[in-house]
Amino acid sequence: MKEIKGGVTAAKGFQAASTAAGIKYKDKKDMALIFCEVPCRVAGTFTQNVVKAAPVLWDMHVVNDSRQAQAVVINAGIANACTGEEGMGICHATARKIKDILEVPMDEVLVASTGVIGKQIPLDRIVAGIEAMAPALSDTLESGLGAARAIMTTDTKEKEAAVTVELCGKTVTIGGMCKGSGMIHPNMCTMLSFVTTDAAISQELLAKALRCDVEDTYNMISVDGDTSTNDTCLLLASGMAGNVEITEENEDYQLFCEALHFVNEALAKKMAGDGEGATALFEVKVVGAQNKEQAKILSRSVVSSNLTKAAIYGHDANWGRILCAMGYAGAPFDPDKVDLFFESAAGSIKIVENGVALDFSEEQATQILAQEAVTAIVDLKMGDASATAWGCDLTYDYVKINADYRS
Amino acid sequence: MKEIKGGVTAAKGFQAASTAAGIKYKDKKDMALIFCEVPCRVAGTFTQNVVKAAPVLWDMHVVNDSRQAQAVVINAGIANACTGEEGMGICHATARKIKDILEVPMDEVLVASTGVIGKQIPLDRIVAGIEAMAPALSDTLESGLGAARAIMTTDTKEKEAAVTVELCGKTVTIGGMCKGSGMIHPNMCTMLSFVTTDAAISQELLAKALRCDVEDTYNMISVDGDTSTNDTCLLLASGMAGNVEITEENEDYQLFCEALHFVNEALAKKMAGDGEGATALFEVKVVGAQNKEQAKILSRSVVSSNLTKAAIYGHDANWGRILCAMGYAGAPFDPDKVDLFFESAAGSIKIVENGVALDFSEEQATQILAQEAVTAIVDLKMGDASATAWGCDLTYDYVKINADYRS
Repeated sequence: MKEIKGGVTAAKGFQAASTAAGIKYKDKKDMALIFCEVPCRVAGTFTQNVVKAAPVLWDMHVVNDSRQAQAVVINAGIANACTGEEGMGICHATARKIKDILEVPMDEVLVASTGVIGKQIPLDRIVAGIEAMAPALSDTLESGLGAARAIMTTDTKEKEAAVTVELCGKTVTIGGMCKGSGMIHPNMCTMLSFVTTDAAISQELLAKALRCDVEDTYNMISVDGDTSTNDTCLLLASGMAGNVEITEENEDYQLFCEALHFVNEALAKKMAGDGEGATALFEVKVVGAQNKEQAKILSRSVVSSNLTKAAIYGHDANWGRILCAMGYAGAPFDPDKVDLFFESAAGSIKIVENGVALDFSEEQATQILAQEAVTAIVDLKMGDASATAWGCDLTYDYVKINADYRS
Repeated sequence: MKEIKGGVTAAKGFQAASTAAGIKYKDKKDMALIFCEVPCRVAGTFTQNVVKAAPVLWDMHVVNDSRQAQAVVINAGIANACTGEEGMGICHATARKIKDILEVPMDEVLVASTGVIGKQIPLDRIVAGIEAMAPALSDTLESGLGAARAIMTTDTKEKEAAVTVELCGKTVTIGGMCKGSGMIHPNMCTMLSFVTTDAAISQELLAKALRCDVEDTYNMISVDGDTSTNDTCLLLASGMAGNVEITEENEDYQLFCEALHFVNEALAKKMAGDGEGATALFEVKVVGAQNKEQAKILSRSVVSSNLTKAAIYGHDANWGRILCAMGYAGAPFDPDKVDLFFESAAGSIKIVENGVALDFSEEQATQILAQEAVTAIVDLKMGDASATAWGCDLTYDYVKINADYRS
């Protein structure tokens, strides 16, 4: 497996375009289009929020019923959630426009939206945006990067990742892009993530690979504990790499899963690190757990704790908040056995042994916590299982961004 | 039932004192003592956090085994949590000192602590504090107020409430004090709350009254989603009011429960409104629910949502975040039926009807949301049940307080 540059256009067959459609922002690209030369197999995971945005409902139908797709239309600025029948009408009209211009069947057009809830999307701008993007479609890395930028809302950086992997002598590529950066506490999937691959793989295994991997990647990040109405993760496979089609869980499937995991984890970490207002990526590894579920529950609880997040912002080794957040997580453990370490580019320090503080150097701890990526390692000493969760610190800017996001 | 001035010294038999023991703060009272002339029946509810502070473990023993108590020693500044055997030793030594000075059996001494986790409490200061407070015990309202102030940490206001209720011609008093204001997301009970009454009531009914009422009061508030290691709610009954002892669930019991509910709800709301950094009390009423459990889950999810809390801080009628927080709460409802109103001293406004935004006046909504106490009313139109939860807005100051609380 080799990491390469690129995003959604890295894999064979995929093109992208983007434009400033003026849906909400001025002077900022806010629409993206992904198109594949051939119909793709498609897998998707979606928010478990009871309140599902119109494009989520639309895409669930495409993924579950059509089971193939050839185009994805994305807009930033308005989420098309809580928009009733008019909102579903927007999805319908978007698909119709793609059909008219790109000759893709309507039920093979995916739609995704992100932004403020409850406002209607102006359809004329979507239509004009599609008309502008269709002739500009291109398979260059630049067009993929443009799309990754166009789907940003409060994100500060575009988020892309791509790898190649050799399957019996054939090079298969997987590339993706995603956006955060608030209302991020995915439950089933993250805000918006689009991954493309040229692998030839059966629809069943494509869906299984995505479903399993989402549990260890997007579902392990939290920015603010709010599970969005729009969380969507789509995986399109063009089959153009020329590999022998993966139809069983053989070695090729394992290699494909590893490569997919690399891309998903990279994207998930980028989302966590670019959480609204964040100054640091906060990683929590729970090791020595009895089982993976326990490790996941505990690590997620810590990255989701406001008090812990505020302490990370303050570079304060306030380990009591970490034990506290583990304590209310809902998974039993023995507090009197816990060891706790902080780790970053500035070094590693042991803070707690058997549930009680060591006489550690506060100065060294602060130095370690002042880095851009900080890891807390919790050893439960109960078994061999482990899990990692990702989040970010809680800052003034998080409050600022969200106190006046809508207006 | 009549609301009166006062707190823990309002009921017959109860005395209080407070002192600046120098446990953590300088020039601030940080210890309080509650004492009753006679042994009291006692009920208590405690944190469900797996990590329980030493005084919580100590008090659970007193409440469950001794079932009576005569003194409560409280300190602010250090939580005595994650302190191992040394921490339990502090509780033991505290009780011994009270026994020596006030002749109370050690297993009838309750202990409570609040503050930073993981530090050891200096025992000499606790001992000196008790020596200073014991001779100063008094049943005046001022001494109760002094105690309410001494238990504050990041609280900005002391929190007291008291009522009288007539039971067959005898006046029974219930009074209490509590403190917040961070790590507040009680699960079984709140941070620290102390309620005293002179009612004569059986231990069983005292415990039942508290257990039931905590569910609708302290357990319905959230400041930051972090369930503390120290949450403790204690209810002491001296029996000195001279009422016929309540031994069955008769009319007197109902009246007692209503009075207890008034005090608990008043204290809980004060805690929510004085949440760390808060500028507003945020109340969420879910009405028209199928059952109370559903209404509770939904209302708690909304007051706990960071994004909603930040919007309240920004006086932004960002109702989509409220529907979103309901959607991920884990209780099903029909988003397309929901009506939503905002209400405060500045008026009332309907924002959403059947899940879709009305064409409301943003100006009026902002005016309503700019008050010190703001209510969101959600009508599910599914039944007759309802529930109310209390929280506060999320502000820069919350982050500031918690980014450098420990140092």
